[in-house]
Amino acid sequence: MKPIWIKNAAQLATISGANKPRTREAMSDLGVIENGSLWIENGKIMAVGSTAELERIYGERASEANIVDATGRLVTPGLVDPHTHVAYGGSREREFEMRLEGATYMDIMNAGGGIHATTRMTREATEDELIEQTTRRLDSFLAHGVTTVEGKSGYGLDLETEIKQLRVMKRLNETHPIDLIPTFMGGHAVPREYKGREDEYIDVLVNDMLPKVADEELAVFNDVFCEVGVFTPEQSERILLAGKELGLVPKIHADEIESYGGAELAAKVGAISAEHLLKASDEGVRLMAEAGVIACLLPATALYLREEAAQGRAMIDAGVAVAISTDCNPGSSPTTSMPLVMNLACISMRLTPAEALVAATMNGACAIGMEEKVGSIEVGKQADIVMWHISNYQELQYLFGVNHVQSVWKKGVQVVG
Amino acid sequence: MKPIWIKNAAQLATISGANKPRTREAMSDLGVIENGSLWIENGKIMAVGSTAELERIYGERASEANIVDATGRLVTPGLVDPHTHVAYGGSREREFEMRLEGATYMDIMNAGGGIHATTRMTREATEDELIEQTTRRLDSFLAHGVTTVEGKSGYGLDLETEIKQLRVMKRLNETHPIDLIPTFMGGHAVPREYKGREDEYIDVLVNDMLPKVADEELAVFNDVFCEVGVFTPEQSERILLAGKELGLVPKIHADEIESYGGAELAAKVGAISAEHLLKASDEGVRLMAEAGVIACLLPATALYLREEAAQGRAMIDAGVAVAISTDCNPGSSPTTSMPLVMNLACISMRLTPAEALVAATMNGACAIGMEEKVGSIEVGKQADIVMWHISNYQELQYLFGVNHVQSVWKKGVQVVG
Repeated sequence: MKPIWIKNAAQLATISGANKPRTREAMSDLGVIENGSLWIENGKIMAVGSTAELERIYGERASEANIVDATGRLVTPGLVDPHTHVAYGGSREREFEMRLEGATYMDIMNAGGGIHATTRMTREATEDELIEQTTRRLDSFLAHGVTTVEGKSGYGLDLETEIKQLRVMKRLNETHPIDLIPTFMGGHAVPREYKGREDEYIDVLVNDMLPKVADEELAVFNDVFCEVGVFTPEQSERILLAGKELGLVPKIHADEIESYGGAELAAKVGAISAEHLLKASDEGVRLMAEAGVIACLLPATALYLREEAAQGRAMIDAGVAVAISTDCNPGSSPTTSMPLVMNLACISMRLTPAEALVAATMNGACAIGMEEKVGSIEVGKQADIVMWHISNYQELQYLFGVNHVQSVWKKGVQVVG
Repeated sequence: MKPIWIKNAAQLATISGANKPRTREAMSDLGVIENGSLWIENGKIMAVGSTAELERIYGERASEANIVDATGRLVTPGLVDPHTHVAYGGSREREFEMRLEGATYMDIMNAGGGIHATTRMTREATEDELIEQTTRRLDSFLAHGVTTVEGKSGYGLDLETEIKQLRVMKRLNETHPIDLIPTFMGGHAVPREYKGREDEYIDVLVNDMLPKVADEELAVFNDVFCEVGVFTPEQSERILLAGKELGLVPKIHADEIESYGGAELAAKVGAISAEHLLKASDEGVRLMAEAGVIACLLPATALYLREEAAQGRAMIDAGVAVAISTDCNPGSSPTTSMPLVMNLACISMRLTPAEALVAATMNGACAIGMEEKVGSIEVGKQADIVMWHISNYQELQYLFGVNHVQSVWKKGVQVVG
């Protein structure tokens, strides 16, 4: 494979520095190099600097490289989406239409809709069908500049289908350009057949599902939906600690609909990240900052559900490291657009353009344990790079609702543009 | 030019019917043909129907046509954006960042920002510079499936620059694929130099600008910003009636920030459309329905300004024909994405997926007097067509935040994909 020299970038936003979650002022530090260059070889970043500097180091080898002229362009690390439910079966656009035509929640449930519809369609889908549907979504992620994606199970809610979802993600991680990092989320909902017997379902989850997942090394993380009417903080803690025993790092859907002690629990169990947090208490946020739990915020979901977005600005000011995600799922956020999520982080959560970019790169990488490989443009890291059809990082957020991606490289291979 | 046969479309949404603003149930009538086909010749639509029907009519001529296989694809008319300020000078991304970094309105004004910054940059730009900047935005519109755009002057606020903006649009209408329909909007703001002497500025507008614009046939419409602190309803009426005398059809920025009688005035002066309407009164909406004034709603602006969107659902239920627009401008809506605007029409204004598509096609065309030429797929109309990388119109709104455009034809010429 020929080396690649991306040169003359109007702004090369490296996000360089320590491979750890950025907080406070560090969330604004993009490490921008004007007239920037990077040299890629064997899928890795070999050098980063001004074009003049790279001329000195690599000028003699220029003729052997593919040269990409980034004049007038912004170049950033590939985006990282640390919270998705991407490997689901079926589609629910008709349900979306029914709601807008006036159908109630119960009408939709009676028509076989809602999360149980996706569970049914995911159970019915073959592994190959799930691969095919998920591939289309991953292709769309790539087209939006996203090169690393976390994906959760949780539409199976039985051993067989949970494992199927995780195997689908494992196969896709091997065959699709995107790095797909798997999370087990048997604790996504209580399956219909266990209604009123929640603790029996948790027994199955803890005794059957988690050991199998750990044994086959099918997931890195273990996530649970801690919410009124789903799993209590006590039940959630039991699920998360059982996973932790087996080496699965805790994540937690916390305080999305009601303030329920989810942020506090995330700090208590040492979760790597807590998700949603629309209704997180001040005390919970303080504890998260203290414990170093990353806040994974999902403003597209808030938009789609017409909820007020999480208090991203206040969380950063309180010392929490903020990451952002699409939450890609068929019910509350059917989108693959991290660019829109960055826009909404600014518009709805009052992050600055620089903070939104750090939240979508380095902090996202940290939220899924990928910070040594991706999330910044630094020597030795994977060459996951986006060139944008704009000249500065402010425009990336200001010219909103538009996918400004021009070209994407994943591990040094051009996959878009 | 070879004929084009677009065939096998999963859904061909024709929006066929009378060329007039659609209201109530008619806003949901997409005239969908499954396994649909259309035949294009000399830039016009020659036939529309099922693929089987077109086989019968054109089967023998198939070999002379470019055949486009739309299997599994949604095909719609080109989108129409009936409200933009696209021909402006400069960019204000740094101001966006300053606001998010905590700068106040006055800080930004003192740093030379706000609408007066755009006025300054538009005055300073040469006609060629404006052409170049506006071309980039029109290219982005096309990439988002928009084939007809209305554009307003109003960043000149002096005779010379207002005329310059309109001439730029005239040239672009001739040279760019997009149909660009010009609106004079000298009544966009009171220029700094007339502060406290608003009526003197209106004298200039009425006595100098409007006659010149009408004389040179530089605009079809005359728009005014009727708002507390800008132009009163009485001043707005004077401006609109003066234009009407000269053959310029009234439009009005109405009730955006405060309820100010703008909707009522639109009905009174016989405006073709009223814009924004976030705070329109019930009585104003009723009068608009009665007078047949189209509501041109701008949900991306509401999102960007963190305002509650206009009551689109209630307006349709009250019998008003609703159109939707980007409002593309450097201050309150720097976007070119009509697909996002359709999504927001559903999410924020509770339009159904079908209503959002009619609002973005036929009703938009009616709002700028283009309904005989564009806005639907019918025999004799311009072949302005979009093929989307999805299979049904519900997905167009459900899979939000993504530009699903695959190919665009303008007057029968493929300009995207």
